[in-house]
Amino acid sequence: MLMPEISKLGHVALITPDLEKSLWFFRDVLGLEEVERKDGTIYLKAWGDFEHHTLSLKAGDTASVDHIGWRTKRPEDVENFATLLQTAGTNVQWIEAGQEAGQGKAIRFKLPSQHSFEIYYDIEKPLAEEDRRSVLKNQRYKSWNRGVSPRRIDHVNLSTSMDPGVIHNWLSENLGFKLREYIKIENGPVVAGWMSVTNLVHDVAVMGDPQAVTPNRFHHLAYWLDNSQDVLRACDILRENGIEFHGPGKHGITQALYAYVLDPGSGHRVELFTGSYLIFEPDWEPVEWTEKDMAVGLTYWGQEIDPVKYPVNSHTTEG
Amino acid sequence: MLMPEISKLGHVALITPDLEKSLWFFRDVLGLEEVERKDGTIYLKAWGDFEHHTLSLKAGDTASVDHIGWRTKRPEDVENFATLLQTAGTNVQWIEAGQEAGQGKAIRFKLPSQHSFEIYYDIEKPLAEEDRRSVLKNQRYKSWNRGVSPRRIDHVNLSTSMDPGVIHNWLSENLGFKLREYIKIENGPVVAGWMSVTNLVHDVAVMGDPQAVTPNRFHHLAYWLDNSQDVLRACDILRENGIEFHGPGKHGITQALYAYVLDPGSGHRVELFTGSYLIFEPDWEPVEWTEKDMAVGLTYWGQEIDPVKYPVNSHTTEG
Amino acid sequence: MLMPEISKLGHVALITPDLEKSLWFFRDVLGLEEVERKDGTIYLKAWGDFEHHTLSLKAGDTASVDHIGWRTKRPEDVENFATLLQTAGTNVQWIEAGQEAGQGKAIRFKLPSQHSFEIYYDIEKPLAEEDRRSVLKNQRYKSWNRGVSPRRIDHVNLSTSMDPGVIHNWLSENLGFKLREYIKIENGPVVAGWMSVTNLVHDVAVMGDPQAVTPNRFHHLAYWLDNSQDVLRACDILRENGIEFHGPGKHGITQALYAYVLDPGSGHRVELFTGSYLIFEPDWEPVEWTEKDMAVGLTYWGQEIDPVKYPVNSHTTEG
Amino acid sequence: MLMPEISKLGHVALITPDLEKSLWFFRDVLGLEEVERKDGTIYLKAWGDFEHHTLSLKAGDTASVDHIGWRTKRPEDVENFATLLQTAGTNVQWIEAGQEAGQGKAIRFKLPSQHSFEIYYDIEKPLAEEDRRSVLKNQRYKSWNRGVSPRRIDHVNLSTSMDPGVIHNWLSENLGFKLREYIKIENGPVVAGWMSVTNLVHDVAVMGDPQAVTPNRFHHLAYWLDNSQDVLRACDILRENGIEFHGPGKHGITQALYAYVLDPGSGHRVELFTGSYLIFEPDWEPVEWTEKDMAVGLTYWGQEIDPVKYPVNSHTTEG
Repeated sequence: MLMPEISKLGHVALITPDLEKSLWFFRDVLGLEEVERKDGTIYLKAWGDFEHHTLSLKAGDTASVDHIGWRTKRPEDVENFATLLQTAGTNVQWIEAGQEAGQGKAIRFKLPSQHSFEIYYDIEKPLAEEDRRSVLKNQRYKSWNRGVSPRRIDHVNLSTSMDPGVIHNWLSENLGFKLREYIKIENGPVVAGWMSVTNLVHDVAVMGDPQAVTPNRFHHLAYWLDNSQDVLRACDILRENGIEFHGPGKHGITQALYAYVLDPGSGHRVELFTGSYLIFEPDWEPVEWTEKDMAVGLTYWGQEIDPVKYPVNSHTTEG
Repeated sequence: MLMPEISKLGHVALITPDLEKSLWFFRDVLGLEEVERKDGTIYLKAWGDFEHHTLSLKAGDTASVDHIGWRTKRPEDVENFATLLQTAGTNVQWIEAGQEAGQGKAIRFKLPSQHSFEIYYDIEKPLAEEDRRSVLKNQRYKSWNRGVSPRRIDHVNLSTSMDPGVIHNWLSENLGFKLREYIKIENGPVVAGWMSVTNLVHDVAVMGDPQAVTPNRFHHLAYWLDNSQDVLRACDILRENGIEFHGPGKHGITQALYAYVLDPGSGHRVELFTGSYLIFEPDWEPVEWTEKDMAVGLTYWGQEIDPVKYPVNSHTTEG
Repeated sequence: MLMPEISKLGHVALITPDLEKSLWFFRDVLGLEEVERKDGTIYLKAWGDFEHHTLSLKAGDTASVDHIGWRTKRPEDVENFATLLQTAGTNVQWIEAGQEAGQGKAIRFKLPSQHSFEIYYDIEKPLAEEDRRSVLKNQRYKSWNRGVSPRRIDHVNLSTSMDPGVIHNWLSENLGFKLREYIKIENGPVVAGWMSVTNLVHDVAVMGDPQAVTPNRFHHLAYWLDNSQDVLRACDILRENGIEFHGPGKHGITQALYAYVLDPGSGHRVELFTGSYLIFEPDWEPVEWTEKDMAVGLTYWGQEIDPVKYPVNSHTTEG
Repeated sequence: MLMPEISKLGHVALITPDLEKSLWFFRDVLGLEEVERKDGTIYLKAWGDFEHHTLSLKAGDTASVDHIGWRTKRPEDVENFATLLQTAGTNVQWIEAGQEAGQGKAIRFKLPSQHSFEIYYDIEKPLAEEDRRSVLKNQRYKSWNRGVSPRRIDHVNLSTSMDPGVIHNWLSENLGFKLREYIKIENGPVVAGWMSVTNLVHDVAVMGDPQAVTPNRFHHLAYWLDNSQDVLRACDILRENGIEFHGPGKHGITQALYAYVLDPGSGHRVELFTGSYLIFEPDWEPVEWTEKDMAVGLTYWGQEIDPVKYPVNSHTTEG
C-alpha cells in the first residue's frame, strides 16, 4: 500500500446559533460566494477557490465546528487512511457520497484532542453561473464582487487544553503533516506548532491553551488576500459594518499579515491573511522560537489579539 | 495693510542629546536627504520637499524643539506678522538672513503655551546634486533611495498642560489657522483641535495633556508617504533596525493612517503618515467628536499610542 | 470689490445617449452613490465628497458635457464673477436656485474655447441616509460599498483645437487659476498646461489637440483613490465587467498614477487617479517640460493612452 | 528505485559581458544580497531565499545562461536522475562538490532544446552575517535593505525555436513537471506551457518562438515581491536609475502581476513578480487558452512586452 497523503485543506463546516447573521457576515461582509443550499446547510467559497465549497454554515444551538475537511492526493488514499487510522486505534466513521453537497464518500474521525477531521478525495469543482463567472479561465467567480473579497481559504488554527505536542506528533505520524515553526518554553515543552503538507508555512496550527475549558477549541479559520492593502481595506469595511476585529498586525512566526475578526453570528474567529512565506526546501528544519524571541515572534508589529477580552470566540468541536 | 497669511509648514528644528544617533535615524533609517551642514546644524529634507530643508538637527544637552518654521504667502507678510504680533503683545525676535541655512530673515515668537514658532518667506529651493537628482523635473531628489523614504513633511502636533482651546483661538486670531476637527467633552471644554491654512485637514494640532509637566510639549512631527503599503513597509524597516514604534493604525479623526516612531537619539516622536483627506470647502464646519464617538474617533482601528508607556517622548520647546 | 475667487471643482454634468448604461457604469461599477433624481437628471457623488453631488447624468441624443461646476470662496463671489466676466466681454447666464438639485443660484458662461463653466457658492452638503452613512463623522457615505469606490472628485481635463495657451491665460486672468506645469515645444508654443487654485497640482488641465474637430473637447474627469493598490483593484473590476481602459501607468507630469476608463454608455473618459503631489509653495514656478523630457514626462511608466485608437471618447460640450 | 523528484527551482547562473554593470543592477538596484565570490563568480540571493544562492554572475564574452539549477527532494535523487536520464539517452555530466560555491555534487545535462539544467541536493543554507541578519528567525537577511528588495526567486521562462510541446513532454516524462496552463492554437499545436512541481502555477514556462535564432533562448528569471505596491515602487526605482522595463501589467494566464526589466549589463530579462495563485488540487486540469482568449490571456491589463522592440534580450544558453 502506497502511504496515503493529504494534499490540502478543503473546508470548514461551522455550526452557528444565528444562521442569518453568520450568512450576512460571510457572504455580504466578507464577500464569499454562495454556491448551494442543501438540507439546511449553506455552502460558500471564495472567488479563487476551486472546490465546491470551502465553508459551510448550519444552524445549531451553540457555535461549534462540525468538522474540518482535508482532501487527499489520490482517490484510494481515503480508504487507505481509514485502514491506517483504524489500525492505529482511531475510530473512523464513513460519510456517504452526497451527504455533503458536491462531495464523494469521506471518512470522519477525531484527533486525540477531539477535534473532528474529515478526509475525502472526490469533490466537484463547478464553474460559476455565467453572470458570476470570472472572465479568467483559471478563476471561478469574478473577484471583488462584494465586501472584503478574499481569494481563497488558507489554513485553520486549533487550540487545546492538552499538551499540543501530542497533537503535533499525532498529525505528523498519522496524516503526514510536517512541523514548520514552533514555540518552545526554554527547557520546557512545545506550546504551539505550525504544520503543513503544502508549500504553505501552515495548513494547520495547534496551540496549547491551558485555560481552555475543552481540549478541542477552534481558534480561527483563515482566508487569503493578495495584498496588505486588501487587509487594510477589509479593516475599513469591518468598521463601517460595526464588526469587532483585532489587527492589523504582523506575526514574526509565519510572517503573517493579519486582521482577526469575529463572525457576529457565531463568535467564530476568521483571519484575513496575507504575507507569510512559502517553504520549498525538502529538508526544512522547523524554526524554534522561545520566550526570548517573543518580542518579534508573536506580534512582530501592530495590534495583538487580546485573549482576555475574547475568550468566547474559541469553540468546542462536535463530531 | 493686507492681512498677512501663512502658506504652509516649513520645517522643524530639533535639538538632540545624541546627534549621531538622530542623524542615523532620520537619514539612514527614515531616508531623509542631508542637504547641508552649517554651524553645527545638519539640514535635511524628504525627496519630495521643495524648500531648502524641512528638518534640522543640532546637538544639545536635552531633547527639545528649537522652533517650528512656517512660510508666509507673500514677502511682506513677515514684517506684517511682526507688526501685528507685537501690537497684540507678543514678543517678536528677528532672525538674520542666513542664520538658518538657505533662509532669509525671519521672526521668532512664542505661543501663549511657550511653543516657539518661526515665520519666514525667503527660502532657497535648491536642486539636488546631479547624481542624487530625480529624473522628474517636478521632484528634487530620487525617490526610494534609502530606508522608509517619505515624500514630504506634513504637519506638527503639539501638546500642552494649558487649556488647548486658548491656543486654538490664538492660532486662529493671530495666524489665521482654521479649526477643522476637534474633540470636546460633552458639556465641557475642547480638549484637542486640528487646524490648517492649507487643504490639509491639519498643518498643526494642539492637544491638551493635563499631566504634561510643561505647557509646551511636542507630540510629533509627521512625514507623508503616498501609500498605506509604504507605511507597512516602514514598520518592517523599523523592526529590522530595532526601533520602537506604535501602529499601524488609523485615526477616525483626520482619517490618518499612521505609525508613530521615536527617534532613538532624542525621543522625539515622528509620525509616518498617509491616508487622511483634503478639505476644499470654504465654509467647512469643524467636525465635533465627543466621548461617545471615541470608539472610532481616536483609534478607528489598529494599535493605539500608549501614553502611559511613553511619557518621555513629549518634550519641552525652548525658544 | 474684493477679487472673487474659485475655491474648488464642484461637479461635472454629463449628457449620455444611454442613461441606463452610464448609470450602471458610474453607480454599480465605479461605485458612486446615487443622491437624488430630479427632472430626469440623476445626481451622484463619491463616498468622500461633501457637496450634494459631484456628477450628474442626463439622457441626450449625443454624449456631451453640459457644464463643469466650480464653487467660489465667498457667497458674493458669484455676483462679482458675473460682473467681471461681463465687463470683460463674456456672456453670462444666470441659473436659478434649485434648477440644479441641491444648489443655489449660479452663473454659466463659455470659455473662449466654448467649454461651458458654471460658478456657484450655495450648495447643500446633506448627510447620507442612516443605513448608508459612514460611522465616521468626517465622511458622508460608507466607503467600499460597491465597485471601485473612489474617495472624491479630483480634476477635469479639457482639450481644444485652439491654441491652449489662450485658454490658460484666460483661466488665469478671469478665474485666478495658476499654471503649475506645462509642455512647451522648444522655441514654440505651450501645448498643454495644468492649473489649480487649490494645493492640488491641477484642478483643470487644458491640452491642445490640433486634430480635434471642435475647440471644446472633453478629455476626462478624474476621481481620486487613496492607494495605488486601489487603482490596480479597479483594473481587475473593470476587466471583470468587460469595460475598456488604459493603464495603469504613471505620468511624470503631475506624477499621477492612473487608469483611464471609458463610460460604456457615453464614451466619456474617467481617470481613476492617485499619487500626484501637492503644491504648498506660494511662489511656485511652473515646471516646464519640452520634447526632450517626454521620455519620462507623459508616460513615466506603464501603459499610455492611445489617442489613435480612442478618438471617439473626447466629446463636445454644449452649454 | 523510488522515482526521483524535483523539489524546487534553485538558482540561475548567468554569464554577462559587463560584470560590473550586472552586479550594480542585481545588487544595488534590485537589492539582492551578495553572499560570496569564488573563482570569478559572484553569488547572490534575495533576503527571503534560504539556499546559499539563487543567482550567480560570471563575466563572459556574450550574455548567456550557464545553467538553471534545480534541487531534488531526497539526496539519492541526484544519482537516480542521472541513471534515468542516461538510460533515456541524455548525456549527463557530473559536477564536483564545491565547484559551485556552497553546493554538493550535481549533474548537468541539456534539454532537447539545448537549455542547460543542473540537478543537486546538497546545498548550504548559511545564516547572514550578524549585521545583515534579519531579526526574524525564519528569514535570512534583513528585508528592504536596498533597492527593489524582492523576497525570493520564483520561476524561469524559456523560449525555443522548436515545437515547445516536445519540451513540455520531455520535462513531464523526465523531471516530473506537471502542465498547469497552456496556450494552444485552435486545431493546432500547443505554443506555450506553464509547468510546476510545487504549489506555484509555474516553476518553469516554455514558450515557442518561431523566429528565435536558436532553440535555447532564455526569456526571463522571476523574483517575487509580496505586494503589488512593491512592484509599482520598483517601477519608480528603475526609472530613477534610467533602466528600461515593461509593465506594470497583469497576465490572465498565471494571473501574474509583473514588471519586466532588462539587466543593462547583459540584456537578461528579470520579471519582478507578484499576485498569481497557488494550485493545491492534486487532479488539476491544465487550463487551456486559445486565440479567442488572448484578449485577457496574455495581457489581462497594463503594458505588454514588445517582442519586436526587444529581440536582443533573449539569449542562448551554453552548458
